[in-house]
Amino acid sequence: MTGLHLYPVVGLPVVEPGDDVAELLASALRGQGLQLRQGDVLVVAHKVVSRAEGRLVALEDVEPSPAARSLAAESGKDPRLCELILRESQAIVRVRPGLVIARHRLGFVCANAGIDRSNAGGEGETVLLLPEDPDGSARRLRYDLYRKTGVAPAVIIADSHGRPFREGAVGVCIGVAGMGPVLSEVGRQDLFGYTLRSTLEAVADELASAATLVMGQADEGIPAVVARGFFEARRAIQIAGEGEATAARLVRPAERDLFL
Amino acid sequence: MTGLHLYPVVGLPVVEPGDDVAELLASALRGQGLQLRQGDVLVVAHKVVSRAEGRLVALEDVEPSPAARSLAAESGKDPRLCELILRESQAIVRVRPGLVIARHRLGFVCANAGIDRSNAGGEGETVLLLPEDPDGSARRLRYDLYRKTGVAPAVIIADSHGRPFREGAVGVCIGVAGMGPVLSEVGRQDLFGYTLRSTLEAVADELASAATLVMGQADEGIPAVVARGFFEARRAIQIAGEGEATAARLVRPAERDLFL
Repeated sequence: MTGLHLYPVVGLPVVEPGDDVAELLASALRGQGLQLRQGDVLVVAHKVVSRAEGRLVALEDVEPSPAARSLAAESGKDPRLCELILRESQAIVRVRPGLVIARHRLGFVCANAGIDRSNAGGEGETVLLLPEDPDGSARRLRYDLYRKTGVAPAVIIADSHGRPFREGAVGVCIGVAGMGPVLSEVGRQDLFGYTLRSTLEAVADELASAATLVMGQADEGIPAVVARGFFEARRAIQIAGEGEATAARLVRPAERDLFL
Repeated sequence: MTGLHLYPVVGLPVVEPGDDVAELLASALRGQGLQLRQGDVLVVAHKVVSRAEGRLVALEDVEPSPAARSLAAESGKDPRLCELILRESQAIVRVRPGLVIARHRLGFVCANAGIDRSNAGGEGETVLLLPEDPDGSARRLRYDLYRKTGVAPAVIIADSHGRPFREGAVGVCIGVAGMGPVLSEVGRQDLFGYTLRSTLEAVADELASAATLVMGQADEGIPAVVARGFFEARRAIQIAGEGEATAARLVRPAERDLFL
């Protein structure tokens, strides 16, 4: 039936550094009888990619700088975690007790520069950084899946971010391949013929949010979701090239942001 | 198949003030052979509800106050639109040429206090305000659908909001009935037994985003989407009472917001 359909990918093992994520995903998909189709969008939780890429850091190996100690004093967070936040950030945006909001080196504004204390193992003494280059990770995953399955889905690497003004976190896209993450409807008309002047839709973020509903945050361990029907539903064009396919398109440049 | 499935509701006429939205939706669902089921979430574009509730305002009937003229001078927007923005707002949050971000009287921070120049007809000379009480609208729609179909879906009234830091608008929930809009996973454990300490997920916003992918913004005119499978996917509890079912739960109180 027409519409958008999100299927959980189940049965993946806990991913370890060095694992071949494409192989694990292809095998899990086979195991549940779910075949990728042209036009599918595969949304993958960043933790899977980050763990496979070895982005785990044991806090005991981190030596906090004076700046990290100062951030730790202000925020009440572990100085070693603060050191990693500073290394992963362009800028610290807001600090209050229990909270550090940073502009990640890739531009995303989020808590702790995206560093995750859960999903890392090690009882909170090991943390998980975002992938070094999430767009590159998405491109590789897309290519490797194509080699293994004959289908190149669009790939979105998803994380969960809090937001100004609104309670609760939502899934967002931090890396993308095979599709433009922002859809422009500028110039199209509404039902009454009024021409839309400012409608950019962050479809990759919406797909990440939709998939996060299925993934959950905690122990279910559903690390990936196949979204089917998006391109048909929106008559949107899957971009074959890679020019526009970067999550940087979702980041508002600092000089145009009214809230930084 | 397991997962989350979003079905467009098609064939609705353009909704006019005084129309019975539940009747129009029930009839459209019958027409396409789509039966509501217990556990469904019906996501409805606010424009449908707002139009039925007669929230259209002809700009020629609006007399701008001095404050509205001042906001118009600063923003470059129509003084009559600025008058309506001020009437619909608690506070103006940011202004720059071409942009007014307001805290709507219901707490949402968004452009133009949610006032829509498209989807109103009248070639931009008529505008559409948000529903007077979107939670109340959602509750009435849920109740009326129950009377007509025997099933009471959870109901989300959706709008599309821009965001600080990120490009592009996404669907968000501005009114809700029959479910809690925020899901807490605090106290649950990740795959490794690490207890989550700060995971609130704005599931109603994620559902609105997922539905917006299917609705689109422009001329398709898909005003509602049936989302099926959410409660099963997340083992979440559909709240029968109405206590927690308010979109106010999605609004961060101003005194706890670091970006106002």
